[in-house]
Amino acid sequence: MHLLSDLTYNARNLNNGVSVQDCPTHCQSLSARYQGVRQQTLELAAPLALEDYQVQPMADASPPKWHLAHVTWFFETFILSQELQGYKPFHPRFEYLFNSYYNGVGEPYPRAKRGALSRPTVDEVLAYRRHVDEAMMKFMAAPLPETLAAKVVLGLNHEQQHQELLLTDLKYNLGNNPLKPAYLDQQPDDLPGSQAPPMTFVPITGGIHHIGVAQGSDFSFDNEGPRHQVLLADFSLASRLVTNGEFLEFIEDGGYQRHELWLSDAWAHLNALGSERWQGPLYWRNDCHNTRGGASTTDSYARYALTGGESELDLAEPVCHVSGYEADAYARWKGCRLPTEAEWEVAAQGCSLEGNFADCCRYQPQAATLPGLTQMFGDAWEWTGSSYSPYPGYCPLAGQLGEYNGKFMANQLVLRGGSCATPQDHIRATYRNFFYPQDRWQFTGIRLARDL
Amino acid sequence: MHLLSDLTYNARNLNNGVSVQDCPTHCQSLSARYQGVRQQTLELAAPLALEDYQVQPMADASPPKWHLAHVTWFFETFILSQELQGYKPFHPRFEYLFNSYYNGVGEPYPRAKRGALSRPTVDEVLAYRRHVDEAMMKFMAAPLPETLAAKVVLGLNHEQQHQELLLTDLKYNLGNNPLKPAYLDQQPDDLPGSQAPPMTFVPITGGIHHIGVAQGSDFSFDNEGPRHQVLLADFSLASRLVTNGEFLEFIEDGGYQRHELWLSDAWAHLNALGSERWQGPLYWRNDCHNTRGGASTTDSYARYALTGGESELDLAEPVCHVSGYEADAYARWKGCRLPTEAEWEVAAQGCSLEGNFADCCRYQPQAATLPGLTQMFGDAWEWTGSSYSPYPGYCPLAGQLGEYNGKFMANQLVLRGGSCATPQDHIRATYRNFFYPQDRWQFTGIRLARDL
Amino acid sequence: MHLLSDLTYNARNLNNGVSVQDCPTHCQSLSARYQGVRQQTLELAAPLALEDYQVQPMADASPPKWHLAHVTWFFETFILSQELQGYKPFHPRFEYLFNSYYNGVGEPYPRAKRGALSRPTVDEVLAYRRHVDEAMMKFMAAPLPETLAAKVVLGLNHEQQHQELLLTDLKYNLGNNPLKPAYLDQQPDDLPGSQAPPMTFVPITGGIHHIGVAQGSDFSFDNEGPRHQVLLADFSLASRLVTNGEFLEFIEDGGYQRHELWLSDAWAHLNALGSERWQGPLYWRNDCHNTRGGASTTDSYARYALTGGESELDLAEPVCHVSGYEADAYARWKGCRLPTEAEWEVAAQGCSLEGNFADCCRYQPQAATLPGLTQMFGDAWEWTGSSYSPYPGYCPLAGQLGEYNGKFMANQLVLRGGSCATPQDHIRATYRNFFYPQDRWQFTGIRLARDL
Amino acid sequence: MHLLSDLTYNARNLNNGVSVQDCPTHCQSLSARYQGVRQQTLELAAPLALEDYQVQPMADASPPKWHLAHVTWFFETFILSQELQGYKPFHPRFEYLFNSYYNGVGEPYPRAKRGALSRPTVDEVLAYRRHVDEAMMKFMAAPLPETLAAKVVLGLNHEQQHQELLLTDLKYNLGNNPLKPAYLDQQPDDLPGSQAPPMTFVPITGGIHHIGVAQGSDFSFDNEGPRHQVLLADFSLASRLVTNGEFLEFIEDGGYQRHELWLSDAWAHLNALGSERWQGPLYWRNDCHNTRGGASTTDSYARYALTGGESELDLAEPVCHVSGYEADAYARWKGCRLPTEAEWEVAAQGCSLEGNFADCCRYQPQAATLPGLTQMFGDAWEWTGSSYSPYPGYCPLAGQLGEYNGKFMANQLVLRGGSCATPQDHIRATYRNFFYPQDRWQFTGIRLARDL
Repeated sequence: MHLLSDLTYNARNLNNGVSVQDCPTHCQSLSARYQGVRQQTLELAAPLALEDYQVQPMADASPPKWHLAHVTWFFETFILSQELQGYKPFHPRFEYLFNSYYNGVGEPYPRAKRGALSRPTVDEVLAYRRHVDEAMMKFMAAPLPETLAAKVVLGLNHEQQHQELLLTDLKYNLGNNPLKPAYLDQQPDDLPGSQAPPMTFVPITGGIHHIGVAQGSDFSFDNEGPRHQVLLADFSLASRLVTNGEFLEFIEDGGYQRHELWLSDAWAHLNALGSERWQGPLYWRNDCHNTRGGASTTDSYARYALTGGESELDLAEPVCHVSGYEADAYARWKGCRLPTEAEWEVAAQGCSLEGNFADCCRYQPQAATLPGLTQMFGDAWEWTGSSYSPYPGYCPLAGQLGEYNGKFMANQLVLRGGSCATPQDHIRATYRNFFYPQDRWQFTGIRLARDL
Repeated sequence: MHLLSDLTYNARNLNNGVSVQDCPTHCQSLSARYQGVRQQTLELAAPLALEDYQVQPMADASPPKWHLAHVTWFFETFILSQELQGYKPFHPRFEYLFNSYYNGVGEPYPRAKRGALSRPTVDEVLAYRRHVDEAMMKFMAAPLPETLAAKVVLGLNHEQQHQELLLTDLKYNLGNNPLKPAYLDQQPDDLPGSQAPPMTFVPITGGIHHIGVAQGSDFSFDNEGPRHQVLLADFSLASRLVTNGEFLEFIEDGGYQRHELWLSDAWAHLNALGSERWQGPLYWRNDCHNTRGGASTTDSYARYALTGGESELDLAEPVCHVSGYEADAYARWKGCRLPTEAEWEVAAQGCSLEGNFADCCRYQPQAATLPGLTQMFGDAWEWTGSSYSPYPGYCPLAGQLGEYNGKFMANQLVLRGGSCATPQDHIRATYRNFFYPQDRWQFTGIRLARDL
Repeated sequence: MHLLSDLTYNARNLNNGVSVQDCPTHCQSLSARYQGVRQQTLELAAPLALEDYQVQPMADASPPKWHLAHVTWFFETFILSQELQGYKPFHPRFEYLFNSYYNGVGEPYPRAKRGALSRPTVDEVLAYRRHVDEAMMKFMAAPLPETLAAKVVLGLNHEQQHQELLLTDLKYNLGNNPLKPAYLDQQPDDLPGSQAPPMTFVPITGGIHHIGVAQGSDFSFDNEGPRHQVLLADFSLASRLVTNGEFLEFIEDGGYQRHELWLSDAWAHLNALGSERWQGPLYWRNDCHNTRGGASTTDSYARYALTGGESELDLAEPVCHVSGYEADAYARWKGCRLPTEAEWEVAAQGCSLEGNFADCCRYQPQAATLPGLTQMFGDAWEWTGSSYSPYPGYCPLAGQLGEYNGKFMANQLVLRGGSCATPQDHIRATYRNFFYPQDRWQFTGIRLARDL
Repeated sequence: MHLLSDLTYNARNLNNGVSVQDCPTHCQSLSARYQGVRQQTLELAAPLALEDYQVQPMADASPPKWHLAHVTWFFETFILSQELQGYKPFHPRFEYLFNSYYNGVGEPYPRAKRGALSRPTVDEVLAYRRHVDEAMMKFMAAPLPETLAAKVVLGLNHEQQHQELLLTDLKYNLGNNPLKPAYLDQQPDDLPGSQAPPMTFVPITGGIHHIGVAQGSDFSFDNEGPRHQVLLADFSLASRLVTNGEFLEFIEDGGYQRHELWLSDAWAHLNALGSERWQGPLYWRNDCHNTRGGASTTDSYARYALTGGESELDLAEPVCHVSGYEADAYARWKGCRLPTEAEWEVAAQGCSLEGNFADCCRYQPQAATLPGLTQMFGDAWEWTGSSYSPYPGYCPLAGQLGEYNGKFMANQLVLRGGSCATPQDHIRATYRNFFYPQDRWQFTGIRLARDL
């Protein structure tokens, strides 16, 4: 077996032919990359009060402490316990406590009760991290076979996913707290009032295109491949994300009360919410929310952001924290539709991988500034109209890690492009995120499409 | 406006360009067709005890009485009340009581409470039918403009859909009754013990194919168009449906207990059922069902059928009343997958529209007898792996009837081919049925597919 | 063993010392009494459409068909199968299907699914009744030992309880049907507009009183004994039931919106009802029910009755179909309280057992006409403030029948006095009925009490 | 108005005639008492990790942080904001956040979401406590009128109730954590293995007795009065609480599987728990819990305690953390019953107020050591068979504090005697605690009674 040097590894072949490779700077060592990602998680957690680590305000929003432990569990369970001779797990019960959903590892601790675990304490979780980090550094000291390096890279990408979840779950916690505490102070240049350029529709020529990740490429998740041909009709894509101001028009036109704009399941979901019925995107607050979308002025809306807490709604900012149902209803109201994931990817193939990512430390979508196709990456995940399904010839990872992506291919929609909470080096044009159409605690926004 | 003669009408153009036409024998008049379909509904109901008309054993399974009234309501609401001058509705509250889901008509009576309406009585509902039938005959006496004839044809197709639902809902009622009453006596030639031919896989060449209904064709639902190109890879399709015997092997291999075979939502659904956890298809009964799929012999299984009631499981018969989740798990266990709806339709384009339909009065799938691609139509609806989504360029019907199909394009899977409860002249290769992946009270079976 | 003649039996001693006796006319034979009660059930069902027999509009409201079968099951299970040599049950599965809650007999068919059983048909249930009646007549032809005669009498009292339930459950069905069908036509003298005499408070002297049934008395349920002493303070009891007009004042004073009038569990229950939040008694309908109890006039209320269907609210009629929570809130609003069951029984000891019972065929409470303590029997069951608990020294019946009453002694309140749906010869001053405080589909009303 | 000196106050008359007085040592000043109780709360919290303050493992078990804030809110809301001129609330939103259930103050923050509030932090809550403590000390510096002193005393008794809840809620958190962390280390003398003296039944003579609190006494809650006469039959009371060993016999006799031992609601509750069905008291763990109470040995049971964490079950220790349903079923199995609250109080009138209270810092019931009537106070709250109802002539406190006790008088049972988590100077023979019959996270045990 060919051994890769730690300094120049190319992660490949977690299993049958799907190549993985991760060397964004083309010269960073695996252990340096490991240290960087692990450190980044701690830095994201640094502004938290210790109490913030502990809270699970709804089943989907896990406590930050759990995220810190679970990503560590991933390295311990799938790498150290299996591959590092003589490795002793930090604690015998952590395999159970911090398993997310891998039935192959054993029945996990109930998801909805993660917030009920006051122990281990944050200090103990940090000790767990150090224990695993030390073992991982030892493990990576010698050159690793390709499949093991690939597992480490998978673990790092996994941790980056949880960096985003840490932010979204924390936002759900703080943003629903009546005290509306900020995660970070407002940045001096975050002044609302700018204007987004007019939305135009960029025509894209159909025909046979290729999407998905080819074998032998850099790291990607198994669900991004195989690369395959798709046949598209001509279509056009909105040049930028829908703004708060544009979405407000939908509200004021009675959008949330007009059944004909909503899918049947969406309308049933709205009505089942009772007194919690959506009146606008998550984190919007309208002091006069009892009126049926009429004469209320825009002044009365506030929105909560991680940076700066609650403040006046910025109309030029992309609308965010809308569900797939709301995105679909908005598109219908506009006489448009959501793009398919293939359309989105084809359009994105021409865009550079730049945008408002977590690296900007803004953690809130930002008004577009340029004309032309923009905001394809960063700002907000873009709902597509495509159900999350396997690509033709899709094959999940072998073994326990086969549960990573494939088993979720039912009832969810694909989202594309990353958000202001996604690490920049984690995203790519082929990246397939997925959530249920009713979910809205992620940074999710709206890109319109049209037939030509 | 061009008027069509009652004798030779071609129904077209319910709205914007989608043509409809309905003349299976190419010479039957619209009113004759109307009388035929309406009569067929009554004949299906004829074997029922009056008490059977009244029962709603679960929210999805409406009472036969409701079906009889609702299909009548369709003609009254969308045709007579709008188009027949001087028409007086049979009863002012029926618009509310028998509205299924058309919010455009008004808030419907709650679906789950249909079985709570002991009034109107069956006699009153039959009088309602006669009232509407008389008005419809008057309405169709003169030649109808194309759009109105198209509405009548839509109403007849709608009634045929409810003929199938009447049977499936009735089966749910009778088949879950501990007394296991039959709908009809067993036919003398319905003897189990036959052998299905071995399952082979029929290769189908990929490339660009056309699917969907073209403008100007015979009647179809709006969701079947527009006709469009799809790009397929080469694939192969199982020559016949999966049999009871084959599915039993899955059970005996512990299929229902092995998490790795199930989608995440499917596994969660199974576990949430508690003591009602599925151990096999709906209507199967295993006297030793407490054992974890091991050494139990096939002798111990019985299955309920509309014809003949409960009897010994026929291993050669196609498995039926499995959910999409079970179909998917079975396919994974076999190292196969479900076909996409495009694959299915392309394969079906070469098949003649024959099979075991409701017209056979068997109301139960029947063992395949021929080699080669068979059972594509009739027997059991075939789960596809495709989410129910709009075709490119899809446009729902205008007005209130726009709620017919389009608003259900979320969270459901497409099924193809019709079943033993579908009227033969109701089905076609382009027909898209749709149910939730957990549903199993319809006549739903499994067709396997494979990549080549 | 002493045998009692059929003509002059005295039913005693179902078990340990609790005497039972049932001879209202002091000369009626047991078999004649049997025939009378059984016939009365059929007469109550006579006005029903066959569809009405089948409906279970909520879990608590069983289908009339089920009542007809269950009371028959009682005789078959507890008498014929155990005591009549050679008795062959009508159908082997009926023991399961028509068991209400006797775990000692076996796990019962699920209560909430009674309405899902379209079979056996009504005709089959009537045949079941005839089968059991014939066997019972044979069984009673010879003189019965005391304990067996007592079991028959218990079965007849049981059937009378279900006669009342048949009416209340039917009312729930018809009264919630948007068509508001009547069970019987309005009687010619049922004109609203009368005046109830003013409510006065009748003082009753405290001290040590006896309540409950003494050993050796006529038939009573086990929960009515043993007779025992209670110590009461002086108190006063309202001379009559609270009227619709008086309850309307509570509504118009915002009673349903004022938390301080409600028990904590009651307030939580109200708020959990969402859009079904109570705005008034069950079967009241207010066309302007969206207004918060303000200026709406009494004209706008209608109320549904079995006799005559929906009509204008009669202000003099006793308020009915209120829950225990509403009765308690009303009493608090009036500066009064509900009586304890001991207070009620002591007061009732001086009242003759007359009133508006099922025998009047009115099936709706009727305005009081006399001053002084009145309406203590009939009209509406009177909520007491007493939890349903065992009397000191209470001992349930032996064997399977021990589940009849005792196991319900938790979380329920005692109601007293019978209603317009109770057979007159079924009630007595010691009779303890019990329902949950949130129940309101029974004929339940309000009697106020006060400390002196 | 007569002013009481701070040094010698007698708290009386929170309202209409109910006297309150609180001077256990007959010379302690109100402010000294205030400081003592407030300090005691902090001392109970001292062993907690900061994460423990934050957790709400079920809706009923509030986070310790919330308890610390809510008891402070009580003083701020009902005393400082109303009575101390110029008082400025610590934070404008705390009135909302820390309101428990006083609708008169405004709609409270949802109970089930208390654990979702990571802010205010523990430090901020401690600052809140100091802010209020300073104001209270200022408020109490001058002599207080009787009604205000009474309010302070009520607030201190309220805080003592929450001291107990802090311990029970913390136990629910730690005891359900798979890591089973202890609150305190095991005390050296807490060795299991002792023998409880045999249970005998102490006869008590019936007749007319007085129970409840008389006007003019020391502090008591409004629900303890008025003092009144009750009439009791002769009865006998078990000399001590039921032990773990005795309860184990019930389990091993199949007690949890025998429907005839359970009330109907209890049996329904058990069956609705599904896989969480009770197999023994809360905090017991049986490694072989899948076997139906048969041959399993006592060795296999462990029980969790605040002190020492999980350890082997001590058979002599009183059984604890059983619901009222379990207490009732156990009593029925033993051929006994639960005492009424009047019986309990009459028996307790002869007992000295000593026992295993929170002051012992043991926080776990302890085996009885003496013959005769013992363990009446401390160890475990004793379920009575009495529903929590108003005493004759009961009158709740005036104003907002009227919600303190009275509105809970439905669906709950009375418990008596205090527990090992109750402060000793908080309890008395007339004290009425109340919980739902299915609750078992409190320190609740079983005292048997019998008719004579």
